[in-house]
Amino acid sequence: MTEQPEAAAPEHPAAPLRIVLVSPRNPLNIGAAARAISNFGFTQLRLVNPYDVAFREARSAVKSQYILEQAQVFDKISDAVADCTLVVGTSAAARRDLHAPLHRLETAGALLREHLVNSAAALLFGSEKFGLSNDDLSHCHWLLRIPTREQHGSMNLGQAVAVCLYELRRSAAAAQHRFAPRAEASASENELLTGLLLELLARSGYTQERTSHSTELKIRRLVRRLGIPASDAETWLGILRQILWKVKQSAEE
Amino acid sequence: MTEQPEAAAPEHPAAPLRIVLVSPRNPLNIGAAARAISNFGFTQLRLVNPYDVAFREARSAVKSQYILEQAQVFDKISDAVADCTLVVGTSAAARRDLHAPLHRLETAGALLREHLVNSAAALLFGSEKFGLSNDDLSHCHWLLRIPTREQHGSMNLGQAVAVCLYELRRSAAAAQHRFAPRAEASASENELLTGLLLELLARSGYTQERTSHSTELKIRRLVRRLGIPASDAETWLGILRQILWKVKQSAEE
Repeated sequence: MTEQPEAAAPEHPAAPLRIVLVSPRNPLNIGAAARAISNFGFTQLRLVNPYDVAFREARSAVKSQYILEQAQVFDKISDAVADCTLVVGTSAAARRDLHAPLHRLETAGALLREHLVNSAAALLFGSEKFGLSNDDLSHCHWLLRIPTREQHGSMNLGQAVAVCLYELRRSAAAAQHRFAPRAEASASENELLTGLLLELLARSGYTQERTSHSTELKIRRLVRRLGIPASDAETWLGILRQILWKVKQSAEE
Repeated sequence: MTEQPEAAAPEHPAAPLRIVLVSPRNPLNIGAAARAISNFGFTQLRLVNPYDVAFREARSAVKSQYILEQAQVFDKISDAVADCTLVVGTSAAARRDLHAPLHRLETAGALLREHLVNSAAALLFGSEKFGLSNDDLSHCHWLLRIPTREQHGSMNLGQAVAVCLYELRRSAAAAQHRFAPRAEASASENELLTGLLLELLARSGYTQERTSHSTELKIRRLVRRLGIPASDAETWLGILRQILWKVKQSAEE
């Protein structure tokens, strides 16, 4: 009953998203960010003032190595976002002194997708230890927050990048796409199964009287409630026939 | 103009979700999974046959250490999912031989949320190298696929866990929640600003004739197009008055 997978990730937006890591300290996280960027079909990684200049040797999946190789490095945020018409910062804390609108990721994803139809945008992630500074945040039009628990808001950098890029790629339409209810066995197949099961139960001593009407009703309902898939009905009929054959054979010996 | 953050992550579902890592090899990934579990307000980590029995010393954020400490270890998948009424496997590949329905994560998240209202479920992640085996998959009611690129479908384990748990926590309602359009400066404030700017431009020699009607119209439209926020109008009026004062003072010297 293999179902076909649903449609692949949506098309690239018309304009590029630059994923900007500000002062990242751990090359493993840079590698993980590159992998998520590749997984979700983005390409542009930018680094501002990375702690380890040897980040290009960061371990990442082979298939995302090209993201690291073409990553751009800047000294200042203003240079890293210069060609973007929207700059969005990420923030773990629900702080009150952010001086900019703070959207939940669900909303931010929709706003970013709309913006990327026409124009480039930058998504900024701060360092593992401190996040984005107030200086960094002053470059942002608005901020987003991944809906983590307030008691443990701070995510791993690579995981935060993956979650944000997933939100940009997720398709609201796909969420509505459910499989049609599975076709169930027909009434006649269920009735055949019920008959075989009744005979088997009588012969194996589970029921006392083959002809008891209430037993028959009980077993019929039992079989109906199984909801046997149409495509499995033949298999179950074969199984019951085989067992019944064996039980009859044993009785004759 | 600090906006309040929107509501925190939704409430815990009534029934628990067990996050089951099957044969994980890298303690870093186990630590990363624990961190995501804590970030998104889940608690139950289960490990089947982990490669490194010292996983409890895996590095994770301090706030998620308790997830590792109470993680349960099993030899077999059947034991790890015994108390669940729904078992869902994760798969990177859009393979054709899965023998089970394959949902995109967007759909899977909705189905899992519905199930967790009443009853426990398990979400299985395979090893970093091989994913879930056919044996592993035979325990699953259905499978889910994160909508990654087909050319690079395989995600890092910790990132895959984070993305799935985010999908379970995301709120469709939150996506609809947008800030009301920002209030802009009133017409009278814009007119005051236009007047100050015109005087400043005349005195500084940018415009030739203070009384030129077409210049006035041009500057008025220029100011309107700025869309100055209502809350910034006073600041801009103060700035222009100060500059104008300085220009007048210089002229008198």
